[in-house]
Amino acid sequence: MNLAETYLNIRQHTATICEPLQTEDYVVQPVVDVSPPKWHLGHTTWFFETFILKLNAVKYEVFDENYNFVFNSYYETVGARVIRTDRGNLSRPTVQDVYRYRAYVDEAMVRFLACEVSDEVKALITLGLNHEQQHQELLCYDIKYILGHNPLFPAYATENIECNLTAGGSGFAAINEGVYEIGYAGKDFCFDNELGRHKVYINSFEISKSLVSNAEYLEFITQGGYQNFKFWHSEAWDWVRNNDINAPLYWHLVDEQWFRYDLQGLNPINMDEPVCHISFYEAWAFAAFKNMRLPTEFEWEVASAELDWGKLWEWTESAYLPYPNFVKAPGAIGEYNGKFMVNQKVLRGASVATSPGHQRFTYRNFFHANLRWMYSGIRLVK
Amino acid sequence: MNLAETYLNIRQHTATICEPLQTEDYVVQPVVDVSPPKWHLGHTTWFFETFILKLNAVKYEVFDENYNFVFNSYYETVGARVIRTDRGNLSRPTVQDVYRYRAYVDEAMVRFLACEVSDEVKALITLGLNHEQQHQELLCYDIKYILGHNPLFPAYATENIECNLTAGGSGFAAINEGVYEIGYAGKDFCFDNELGRHKVYINSFEISKSLVSNAEYLEFITQGGYQNFKFWHSEAWDWVRNNDINAPLYWHLVDEQWFRYDLQGLNPINMDEPVCHISFYEAWAFAAFKNMRLPTEFEWEVASAELDWGKLWEWTESAYLPYPNFVKAPGAIGEYNGKFMVNQKVLRGASVATSPGHQRFTYRNFFHANLRWMYSGIRLVK
Amino acid sequence: MNLAETYLNIRQHTATICEPLQTEDYVVQPVVDVSPPKWHLGHTTWFFETFILKLNAVKYEVFDENYNFVFNSYYETVGARVIRTDRGNLSRPTVQDVYRYRAYVDEAMVRFLACEVSDEVKALITLGLNHEQQHQELLCYDIKYILGHNPLFPAYATENIECNLTAGGSGFAAINEGVYEIGYAGKDFCFDNELGRHKVYINSFEISKSLVSNAEYLEFITQGGYQNFKFWHSEAWDWVRNNDINAPLYWHLVDEQWFRYDLQGLNPINMDEPVCHISFYEAWAFAAFKNMRLPTEFEWEVASAELDWGKLWEWTESAYLPYPNFVKAPGAIGEYNGKFMVNQKVLRGASVATSPGHQRFTYRNFFHANLRWMYSGIRLVK
Amino acid sequence: MNLAETYLNIRQHTATICEPLQTEDYVVQPVVDVSPPKWHLGHTTWFFETFILKLNAVKYEVFDENYNFVFNSYYETVGARVIRTDRGNLSRPTVQDVYRYRAYVDEAMVRFLACEVSDEVKALITLGLNHEQQHQELLCYDIKYILGHNPLFPAYATENIECNLTAGGSGFAAINEGVYEIGYAGKDFCFDNELGRHKVYINSFEISKSLVSNAEYLEFITQGGYQNFKFWHSEAWDWVRNNDINAPLYWHLVDEQWFRYDLQGLNPINMDEPVCHISFYEAWAFAAFKNMRLPTEFEWEVASAELDWGKLWEWTESAYLPYPNFVKAPGAIGEYNGKFMVNQKVLRGASVATSPGHQRFTYRNFFHANLRWMYSGIRLVK
Repeated sequence: MNLAETYLNIRQHTATICEPLQTEDYVVQPVVDVSPPKWHLGHTTWFFETFILKLNAVKYEVFDENYNFVFNSYYETVGARVIRTDRGNLSRPTVQDVYRYRAYVDEAMVRFLACEVSDEVKALITLGLNHEQQHQELLCYDIKYILGHNPLFPAYATENIECNLTAGGSGFAAINEGVYEIGYAGKDFCFDNELGRHKVYINSFEISKSLVSNAEYLEFITQGGYQNFKFWHSEAWDWVRNNDINAPLYWHLVDEQWFRYDLQGLNPINMDEPVCHISFYEAWAFAAFKNMRLPTEFEWEVASAELDWGKLWEWTESAYLPYPNFVKAPGAIGEYNGKFMVNQKVLRGASVATSPGHQRFTYRNFFHANLRWMYSGIRLVK
Repeated sequence: MNLAETYLNIRQHTATICEPLQTEDYVVQPVVDVSPPKWHLGHTTWFFETFILKLNAVKYEVFDENYNFVFNSYYETVGARVIRTDRGNLSRPTVQDVYRYRAYVDEAMVRFLACEVSDEVKALITLGLNHEQQHQELLCYDIKYILGHNPLFPAYATENIECNLTAGGSGFAAINEGVYEIGYAGKDFCFDNELGRHKVYINSFEISKSLVSNAEYLEFITQGGYQNFKFWHSEAWDWVRNNDINAPLYWHLVDEQWFRYDLQGLNPINMDEPVCHISFYEAWAFAAFKNMRLPTEFEWEVASAELDWGKLWEWTESAYLPYPNFVKAPGAIGEYNGKFMVNQKVLRGASVATSPGHQRFTYRNFFHANLRWMYSGIRLVK
Repeated sequence: MNLAETYLNIRQHTATICEPLQTEDYVVQPVVDVSPPKWHLGHTTWFFETFILKLNAVKYEVFDENYNFVFNSYYETVGARVIRTDRGNLSRPTVQDVYRYRAYVDEAMVRFLACEVSDEVKALITLGLNHEQQHQELLCYDIKYILGHNPLFPAYATENIECNLTAGGSGFAAINEGVYEIGYAGKDFCFDNELGRHKVYINSFEISKSLVSNAEYLEFITQGGYQNFKFWHSEAWDWVRNNDINAPLYWHLVDEQWFRYDLQGLNPINMDEPVCHISFYEAWAFAAFKNMRLPTEFEWEVASAELDWGKLWEWTESAYLPYPNFVKAPGAIGEYNGKFMVNQKVLRGASVATSPGHQRFTYRNFFHANLRWMYSGIRLVK
Repeated sequence: MNLAETYLNIRQHTATICEPLQTEDYVVQPVVDVSPPKWHLGHTTWFFETFILKLNAVKYEVFDENYNFVFNSYYETVGARVIRTDRGNLSRPTVQDVYRYRAYVDEAMVRFLACEVSDEVKALITLGLNHEQQHQELLCYDIKYILGHNPLFPAYATENIECNLTAGGSGFAAINEGVYEIGYAGKDFCFDNELGRHKVYINSFEISKSLVSNAEYLEFITQGGYQNFKFWHSEAWDWVRNNDINAPLYWHLVDEQWFRYDLQGLNPINMDEPVCHISFYEAWAFAAFKNMRLPTEFEWEVASAELDWGKLWEWTESAYLPYPNFVKAPGAIGEYNGKFMVNQKVLRGASVATSPGHQRFTYRNFFHANLRWMYSGIRLVK
């Protein structure tokens, strides 16, 4: 598959994810971490227009000058007017306008890719495509949040990514003490945060082959886990009390029975499935309740060959920090990951919402410890 | 015109206001005081379904049980599930669903009105229609806010209610001291807050025949009115500084020239028009700057025959309080106005956004002192 | 008594109020509306230094240049340094320093008053003394708040202003319809907001001769008054729920019995006393519960001769607004009252904390509708 | 020195730190991270009363039952009364009361230590003393904050801990790649977070022998470091803009010259001293500006023998996490450190405010990335 084909495939997949949506679903932003689907569609397109076409394509004419500050991520200035463009308040450009924008840029990209392209530009396009795949995953989270927080609990689609969630194997895998190499070593694309391959000393440990199930997690709930401060970090405990947290996101206790919103609507919980939509705080508290702990990201990477991973992102104990030889790329791309390397936790693996071909055992995902609208689960170590 | 015709006329006018909108415009809620147009459409319909059809129409079947807590105004409970239904976060029901809901209820109402209806129910329907007309006016404010805070400054329509704004007459009208009667005395519909007709002693005063113009207000700006605390109430001054207020809402200084968003887009300001989108705080500060003052609502009512009113709501110095003989109606309707009678200011007159046939010189509009997304202006007294 | 004697008497009374305090009690500011006693002592002194001595006394040397921005009410700038002087965060100047400051200024004032003083300056001194008396009353509120919100519930003093609280007479006084004169008409000192004597038309009404008692108010509590939205203004209801309000300030339910903090500590409630430390919201809700209403400030003034008032400030339905002929004095004194005339409610009468000789039936006290740390009570009208 | 002598020495040192204070300085809490000195005095005493005397001393009578919920750290309940005891709002117990409490407990402790004491209890007393020493250091921070944020800038004392701040050696020390042992290995007291000695693989690096000086840091300021987002983490940049940060804490630009508050008052900055009162965000941004980085805590520990450390706590890039074999102690002591191990950064070394005998190269201090009222500085690695 050549780059133009890959480009069109990935771009098409974004639209496919949005296909079941109504126009209205593209527009809203229920909480600050969730972006309107319309914004994802525009922002990923803006990436190609700004970093590829405007800089490299001959006689490229921008689709609409105003889109720059609608689909960029910062506060913006037009003349002396400063307007805060809160994403969820913007009814325009319309969904149709945004799809027109996508078609316009895609056409220009295909034209551009028909000519010779330098390796440097190719690398940038590849980054843009990986960027779009990350937004595909975020789209899945955000769409679920938008529909799952609507009091009508509308279904997304009968056939969907959640249909085959399983907890994986059983028992524990034992890993020996020693020095291991960590980080990406291949020749294909990877993000800058996976680079700086380096040695790490690992103590021996045993890691569960299965993710924690809903049944196991329910035991934590029924045994008062959310009411007992001793399982929680100090700031986790504040979070639990200030937000009245008493179950994973999307769980609802209706007439003494636990339901949860999934992409088909509000349904009874399947107890065999792995528990999902869990914050780091909850994952850590659950581990404390079981007298076990979460793996570090290094333990996870070393053990990954023994595991059946890829259903849910797995919280690790590791903070998101640069590898010893981490180097920021020059220019705008240098901002890609480094500036987020404080106060976040690493998740490893991949989830059912991860785009095809985007799974790597060196991939470092990261979120704040209180977030849980992503497909996150728990794997224990002892 | 019989009641069914009146009903359909008024209901149709709501849809007419929304006609120039895109689907996306119906959904967003940029600030808490602005409701999504979709919500207005549903809420006014819910009024007729809940208070007329469900209680009185034979065998009426509710359109959708879930709509009750989407279009009611409070937090709601379904079984044991409690979900906060922030209006601006709700993508469903869709705009099309809401129009279907309107059609369904309208059809049922027409059927219902074909039979004999008691005077009491008729009165309730009339209240519902006046309620809808109030929402028509709010719809105009909210649509303008949604489009006017979009960085693309989209036009609403070339022909619109703002096209003929004029400041009115010139000079001052003099009113004599004495006892006057205040409050509604007619036989037609009025709101409960206009009732309790009573005597008020008024001192002599002179009231301007014209509204304050943009040119006059600009003088206040250029002479440092927004920087001089002596013109402002103490909490107004906090409001000015905390929100960086330096001009009326919708005004933008672009390259040293003042523009404003109107329903046709971003345009240079017509200096002869009356200044609009002004908070009580600003109206009061402007009056202090001119060494004059705002009228009380009683002065305004007494002088109204001398004035060319109806372009903009006119801020008064009066707080929104019950008239001496104010009586709360029993039941749900009793909640209509009384519970808002604290910490708000009365505006008198009517505006270009006021629905046809909704102008009365006894009408008491009211808003918090800091709000200015409505069509509000300034009339001075000395 | 000459002015110097009056001056010293009033100044001494401020110190007398503080006599039972520990040094630590002078320093804290538990909520924004409560000022540290130390600040009251300094601020009232600063008034005389700034407006009398610095402008009029020959060769007066300021006690400490820095005190200007400690005891003024605004944020201040020294050179290029801007420091927010939150009152409750300031350990310096010490209490002893502040008393030294008072002694220094008092000495200078006595020296100044030994010479001839113009009528204009005398008027300003009289204003300063009335200003100090207002702060004496606030001192009582603030001291009670500081001690009453300490978990040790320390007593202030056995003999204190609260010892003789009685609800007053019984039955209702009837007032006839007609035009009445409102506002101060005497020759002695009054505040600018009492001036602009003017005519008001009053409808006939009956006003209770007694204040509402704790026993009556308890009935409101036990019959679910705090749980029933129909008694409350819309924003009062938000206030009740957001702050978990379920009783007057200082009331505590301990083992099924109601206690309250008074100036002697935590004690069982005397049910015959008038209910105290009530917000306007609660006063209004209680009146609605009794199917009565609060008086307007005009009704209160007209009826005052029939009432035994002066135990507690009495909430009125009236908003705090300028009288028809209100004129702002020029200069700094002009700021005294006018800038607070929005979003506040008028209270009439006086309280046990009101300084001797400060009671006038034309006196207009005012507070925001949610406040209740002052000595406020309820009188009903029907 | 026996345990009773050590006990009295350490307890006395706390009082010595407070000696220059006025009573008022003991009471205030300008920001949430700063506790009133009075609270430190009481809380450390409460530790010995609660965990030693009440559980072990024969016939010990508690000094005051109410002190438990004043000097504990949580919200508390007395009967059905729940009162939030905001530390900075509490004027009682008075400073004198607290010193009486200290004397009472000290006397009981000395009596208790005159008899045989089990090793377990001895360990707990030792923990209590180390706990008190940690509060001694916090006392220094908090006193400086209280005085340094007072607009009078009062001096603490002429002779003080800040008098001999020097930046240390020069040049860089080079450390070789390899496996190193990390964590406490001695027999004396250490905190639980230093235990779990384990191997870590370290890459070769060079570490500065001197701390960054005020002169070097000023260059960062004058070259626009606080205005250039590319040096900052994403959330650091928000912190800079939301709080208008443009210099280290306590720095003030007065008439174009930089001053800073030190314990002697407001004085010109000595440019040779190490920069102090720096947040992690700033330390990291400065390192980025110099094209270097901060050490990890493991690098720091390995290199510590080469460094002249102990003037300022040194920010590391490491997040505060448990060591591989970290074990929570059972019971209340188990809460000591583990529950803080999320979202904080490790600082290594010690500062001029660290209590005598409290310096260990394995000591792990930790603070949130935005805090800077402690004695913190910057050491770079390349």
